[in-house]
Amino acid sequence: MSHRGFASDNYAGAHPDVLAAMAEVNVGHVTSYGADPTTATAVERFREVLGEQVEVFFVFNGTGANIVGLQGLLHTWESVVCARTAHINVDECGAPERHLGSKVIDLSTSDGKLTTELVRSVYTGIGDEHRSQPRVVSITQSTEVGTIYTPAEVRELADTAHSLDMYLHMDGARISNAAAGLGVELRETTGDCGVDVLSFGGTKNGLVGAEAVVFFRPELAQNELFIRKQQMQLASKMRFISAQFIALLNDDLWRHNANHANAMARRLADAVRDVQGVTLTQEVQANGVFATIPAAAVSTLQPEFHFYEWDELSHECRWMCSWDTTEDDVDRFAAAIAEVVPQSL
Amino acid sequence: MSHRGFASDNYAGAHPDVLAAMAEVNVGHVTSYGADPTTATAVERFREVLGEQVEVFFVFNGTGANIVGLQGLLHTWESVVCARTAHINVDECGAPERHLGSKVIDLSTSDGKLTTELVRSVYTGIGDEHRSQPRVVSITQSTEVGTIYTPAEVRELADTAHSLDMYLHMDGARISNAAAGLGVELRETTGDCGVDVLSFGGTKNGLVGAEAVVFFRPELAQNELFIRKQQMQLASKMRFISAQFIALLNDDLWRHNANHANAMARRLADAVRDVQGVTLTQEVQANGVFATIPAAAVSTLQPEFHFYEWDELSHECRWMCSWDTTEDDVDRFAAAIAEVVPQSL
Amino acid sequence: MSHRGFASDNYAGAHPDVLAAMAEVNVGHVTSYGADPTTATAVERFREVLGEQVEVFFVFNGTGANIVGLQGLLHTWESVVCARTAHINVDECGAPERHLGSKVIDLSTSDGKLTTELVRSVYTGIGDEHRSQPRVVSITQSTEVGTIYTPAEVRELADTAHSLDMYLHMDGARISNAAAGLGVELRETTGDCGVDVLSFGGTKNGLVGAEAVVFFRPELAQNELFIRKQQMQLASKMRFISAQFIALLNDDLWRHNANHANAMARRLADAVRDVQGVTLTQEVQANGVFATIPAAAVSTLQPEFHFYEWDELSHECRWMCSWDTTEDDVDRFAAAIAEVVPQSL
Amino acid sequence: MSHRGFASDNYAGAHPDVLAAMAEVNVGHVTSYGADPTTATAVERFREVLGEQVEVFFVFNGTGANIVGLQGLLHTWESVVCARTAHINVDECGAPERHLGSKVIDLSTSDGKLTTELVRSVYTGIGDEHRSQPRVVSITQSTEVGTIYTPAEVRELADTAHSLDMYLHMDGARISNAAAGLGVELRETTGDCGVDVLSFGGTKNGLVGAEAVVFFRPELAQNELFIRKQQMQLASKMRFISAQFIALLNDDLWRHNANHANAMARRLADAVRDVQGVTLTQEVQANGVFATIPAAAVSTLQPEFHFYEWDELSHECRWMCSWDTTEDDVDRFAAAIAEVVPQSL
Repeated sequence: MSHRGFASDNYAGAHPDVLAAMAEVNVGHVTSYGADPTTATAVERFREVLGEQVEVFFVFNGTGANIVGLQGLLHTWESVVCARTAHINVDECGAPERHLGSKVIDLSTSDGKLTTELVRSVYTGIGDEHRSQPRVVSITQSTEVGTIYTPAEVRELADTAHSLDMYLHMDGARISNAAAGLGVELRETTGDCGVDVLSFGGTKNGLVGAEAVVFFRPELAQNELFIRKQQMQLASKMRFISAQFIALLNDDLWRHNANHANAMARRLADAVRDVQGVTLTQEVQANGVFATIPAAAVSTLQPEFHFYEWDELSHECRWMCSWDTTEDDVDRFAAAIAEVVPQSL
Repeated sequence: MSHRGFASDNYAGAHPDVLAAMAEVNVGHVTSYGADPTTATAVERFREVLGEQVEVFFVFNGTGANIVGLQGLLHTWESVVCARTAHINVDECGAPERHLGSKVIDLSTSDGKLTTELVRSVYTGIGDEHRSQPRVVSITQSTEVGTIYTPAEVRELADTAHSLDMYLHMDGARISNAAAGLGVELRETTGDCGVDVLSFGGTKNGLVGAEAVVFFRPELAQNELFIRKQQMQLASKMRFISAQFIALLNDDLWRHNANHANAMARRLADAVRDVQGVTLTQEVQANGVFATIPAAAVSTLQPEFHFYEWDELSHECRWMCSWDTTEDDVDRFAAAIAEVVPQSL
Repeated sequence: MSHRGFASDNYAGAHPDVLAAMAEVNVGHVTSYGADPTTATAVERFREVLGEQVEVFFVFNGTGANIVGLQGLLHTWESVVCARTAHINVDECGAPERHLGSKVIDLSTSDGKLTTELVRSVYTGIGDEHRSQPRVVSITQSTEVGTIYTPAEVRELADTAHSLDMYLHMDGARISNAAAGLGVELRETTGDCGVDVLSFGGTKNGLVGAEAVVFFRPELAQNELFIRKQQMQLASKMRFISAQFIALLNDDLWRHNANHANAMARRLADAVRDVQGVTLTQEVQANGVFATIPAAAVSTLQPEFHFYEWDELSHECRWMCSWDTTEDDVDRFAAAIAEVVPQSL
Repeated sequence: MSHRGFASDNYAGAHPDVLAAMAEVNVGHVTSYGADPTTATAVERFREVLGEQVEVFFVFNGTGANIVGLQGLLHTWESVVCARTAHINVDECGAPERHLGSKVIDLSTSDGKLTTELVRSVYTGIGDEHRSQPRVVSITQSTEVGTIYTPAEVRELADTAHSLDMYLHMDGARISNAAAGLGVELRETTGDCGVDVLSFGGTKNGLVGAEAVVFFRPELAQNELFIRKQQMQLASKMRFISAQFIALLNDDLWRHNANHANAMARRLADAVRDVQGVTLTQEVQANGVFATIPAAAVSTLQPEFHFYEWDELSHECRWMCSWDTTEDDVDRFAAAIAEVVPQSL
C-alpha cells in the first residue's frame, strides 16, 4: 500500500521510461566501472546538453555527488561558504566536514540564496595560516526552500567567487526544476553562468537513483576518477546508472517531469494562498511550497498527507510536489487545508 | 554490442527477476531512506535466512559495504588484519585507510586465506600506544582467488579473533558462491561460524547494484544509521535496492545463480587442466579459475575473451564466470585455450 | 631586539622559574613518553589542584589540547557547539573539522559567552541520521574577548549539556586568568561546575610551551593515550613538559602570573576608558582589553605597540596583557592612546 | 632518581648548550608562531647547512615532522612505500593512515633499508583508479635497526623515485648519526643525494624537543604553513624551538653528539661481539646495537640496564646509545653481558 503525499520528491518512484531504459541495456557483458558503451553515450548526451568540454562522473546519490565534486576543489584547510539551509550544511550528517576535512561556513538567508555581499562578509583572514581559507561558494539550485537563482544572480556569484580566487559549486539536486522554472536550457543556469562544478540531480526528478558530477572546467577534474572510487561512489555495473540519465535527457524528459512538479506546486500554492491561517513563507518558484499553518492543523493534516515541518518552532511546513504528483493529489490536499486550517485558528 | 568474456562477474548484467522486482515496487509514494515496506520485507527475509537477531543495512556497492561495516568495529588507532589479496587491501583505492583512519595489515598467503597462525603473528604491541592495535580480522568468502573457507576454518578464525578481543569481518562480495560451493545455507558459513559483520554481496550475483551490511551481533550496529548516512551510502529511493534483495533471496535465486557460475568455472577448469602450458594455480572452489599461461597466449586470447592478468609478472590469469556465463561461452574459450596455449610455448 | 607590545600573551617569553624547572630535571636518563617521575609528580599536582580523580594528558599546544580532549567525546557524526568567536571555530585553521570529522556549530554572541538558550536553539534533529548530532558544548574560559563565565554560568551550561546527553568542554587556554579574575581556585570554575574535559592552558601564562588535557570523568579518558599519540601530541622527553607545569602550580605561580596580567589589563582599561574616541566593547574581566578607536589611530599606534585589529571593519582592537607586561608598558601605551586617538577623530 | 641505560636515545636529557640557548632567547616580547628573529636565524642556519633554497618548518616531534612533510607530497589516494621496520609503519600508532588518508605499503627487509628493486616490486596498478597510487618512497636515515644508507644508495633511490614520478622522503630522526657515521656533511646524505623532503631530527640528538621539516624543492612547500597549523604542529612561542636548533647547528654540536653516541655503540658492539651467546644481528653503523641473547639473559639484564626486546620471539634486543652515554655506562653493561649471557645458555 502506498501513501501519496507531499513529504518529499524522493517519496515518488521512477518514471517508467527510466526503468525501461535500464531493462534495455540489460544485455550481455560490458566492461564494468564505466568503460561501457551506455556510459559513453550518456556522457555524450551530457556534453550535448551542457557543453562539449564538460567532464561527467556518475555517482549514487546527492551527498556523494556533492562530496565528490567539492573534493576536487578543496584542500582540507580551505572552506566552503553556503547558505545555512544548504543540504551540505544540514542534511548530510556532517559528511562534508568528515570527508573534505573542511570547514563549512553557513550564512543566514531569508530565501535560501547567497549573495555577493554575504560571500564577501566571510572572505577574511586570507593568507593567515590560523584561518581556514574560503575557497568554494556553494549554492543550491533550486534552493532547499523552493526559490530559484536567476541566471544573472548565478553569474554575479560566479564572478565574485572567481575574483576572489574561489570556485562556484552548484548543488543541483533539483537543477531540472530550476531550469524548467526559469524556462531556460540546463546550461543557461549552470555553465553559461560560470558554475565550475555541478551536482546534477536525477533521483528527485524521476530516476531510480543516479546523480552526476559535472565539471565545466575539465582541468579541475583531473583527480576525479580516484576521488570517486576512494569515496565509494563508483558503480560496478555502471550501465544501469548511465541508462537512467539517457532516459532523463532524451526528449527533454527532465523538463517534462520538472515542469509538472513545478506546476503542481504552483497549483497548490494558488489554492491555499488565501486560506485564512495559511501564510506562504517563500516564493513558489520550483516544486516546493513553504507555509506556516497552526500547530493543530499540522497534526490533523500530517497523517493523511505526509509532509514535514520545516521549522518545528514556527510550524513552517514544506509541501513538496514531484513528477508524479497529480492534480487530484493537489486538489484533495488543498481542500483539506482549506477545511482544517481555519478551524485550527 | 556486448562482448561476452571472463573478465569479471560484474561484466554481467542483472537477472531478469531482479529488474522485474524493481518494476513491481515502482508504485506510488513510499517513505524514502529505508522506512518503506519493501525494505521492511527485505530485512525480514534476511532475518529468516541469517537469523532473527541480525541488523541489516543496505548500501550501494562493495567498497561501501566494507567501510560501513568495518567502521562500526574500529577506532582510528585500531587496525584490520587481512590477506594481501583482500579487496580492502588492493582494490578499494585506499578507501579503508582514508575512511576508517585505520591501518590495514596485509599478510601474504598462498591461497587468499588467513589462518589463525597468520593472525597471531601480527597480534603484537597490545596496549602500546605507539602501535596501532589489531581489532578486526577480515576474511573474504569466497576469496579473491576463487578459494573457499570451510565452516570449520571460519569458526577457528572467529574463535581466535574473539579470544584476542578482536572481531571477525567477512567480505562476502561472493558469499553466495561460497555457500553454494560448500553446499550449505548462507548462515552456515557466516553467523553460525562466529562472523560478527558480513558484507553481503549482491551485485556480482545478478543484481543491478546492491550490497548489504549484516551485523550478527546487534549491539555492534548501534551507530550504523549515522555511519551509513555520513559515509554517503544511504539511498533515498531505498525500495529499489531492497527489491533486488527480495528477488535474490526468493526461491533461492542466490543459490541458483551462484551454483551456475561455480559450475561454469569448474567446467572451464576441467576443460583446460590438462592442456599443455596451462597450470591452474588455485583450487577452483567458486566461480573463478586462476591459471598461468604463456605471455604470448595471453595476448592472443585477451581481445576475444576479455580476462585480466592477475599477476603481470607470472602471467597468472583470472577467468571469472558469472550467473549468465553459458556452457557455450566456456566451451568456446576452452577450445581457444587448447588451441592457442600449446602453440605459444 | 625585542618589541614589547599588546599583540598577544604569547608574545611574552617564559617565566624564569619555568626554565629553571626544566633545567632542574635535565639529569640523567628517564623513561620517555611520560613514564618518568617528573610527569608523575606533575600529574599528582594536578590531582591536588583539580581533584583526585582527574586524568591528565600533557600536550604541546592549545589546538592539540582541544583536539585531543574533544576526540574523546565525539563520534564523527556528532557536533560541537561553540561561540562564533571560539578559538576552535576561527583560530585553528579548521583542525577540529579535519581531525574530529565533526561539524562545528558556531553561535553568535555579544560577549563570547554561550548561554543555555543558545545551546538549546541548535539542539534539533536528535536521532535523525541526516543531521549531525550535537554532543559537546565547548566554552572558552576566559573567553577570546576577555570576559569570564561565573561559576554559576558554567554550572548552568554543564547542567544543560548533561540534561541533553551532551558534554561540557572548556577551552582553558586562559583558565588561570579566569580563576584569578574570579578570585577562586582552579577547580571552582572547572570540575566543581560540571566541566567534563578541560584544555588547561600553560603557554599563555608563562610557560615555554605546554598544555594539559584534563578529564574530570576518568571513564571518558580511556582511549586518550592512543588518541594523544595518534594525534601527534605525545612528547618523547616528556619531563620537560611536565616540569613546566610543576613550576606553574608551585606556590600558585599560575595565579601570580594571571593576576598580574589581569591587573595590567584593568590598568590599561581604566586609563583609556574616558579618552574621547575610545569605546571599550567588552567588560575587562581577564587580561584583554577590547576597544574601538578610529582607523587612523590604529595605523599610528600599531607600529610601536603591536596589537591586532580584532574586527577589521569596525576597527575594534584587541590589547592583550601578559605575565610580563609592566606598569610602564601600560602607562606608555595609555599615554599614546590618549594623545593619538582624540587627534584621529 | 635517574636510571641510566640503553633503552632509547630519547631517555637522555638535553645537552646543556640547548637549555642555555633557550634561556638566552627568553628576553622580552617577540612575534609568535615563527615570525621572530630567533626563528629567522635558525632557518638561515639550516640554509647554510643544507642549501640556500631549502624551506624549513619547525615542529614538535618526529611523528609530526613525518606527517607534516608527507602531507605536502601526497593525495589521499596515493601511497607511501617504506620498510616494514619504518617508524611511520610501526611506531606512530597509525598516524600516517589517519592523517594522510593514505596507504602505507611496507616491505620486508633484512637491514631496514629499501632498495630500488623493492620499490619497483610494488610499483603496479599505475593509473588504475582501484589502486592506491605509489607516490612517495620513505626511507629512514640512519635506519631503525642502526644501519646507514650510503650516499650512493640514497641517490639511487632518489633517481628511481623520480623516474617513477615519485618523491623521496627521508625520516631523519637520526640524520645526525647517519652523517656522522658516514663522515659527511648533512647535505651530502640528504639534498645532495636527491632527497625531496627530510624530517630533520633534533630531540634524539640532545634537544629538549624539536624537529624540522626540510623541503629541498621549495615548490613542494607551498601549502606547508597551513598544513603545519592544521596538523597541530605550530608552536606559539616558536623562539624556544628555534633556539634549540641554533644550538645544535652551532659549532657542529650535532656532529659532536652523534659521533659520541655512535662511538659508544661501536664500543659496546666490540666489547660483546665475541661473547658466547651474543649474536649481533645488524651492522653497527650508527648509535644502536642489535643482538640476540638468550631469554634468560634478557630478564636478568633488563632491570638494571633498561633496554627493549626488538623482537619478542627471537629475543633480539636493541641497545641504544645517546649523546650522554658514557664509556663507563658501556663498560659496565658490556661486563654484565659478558657475565650473564654465557651463564644463560
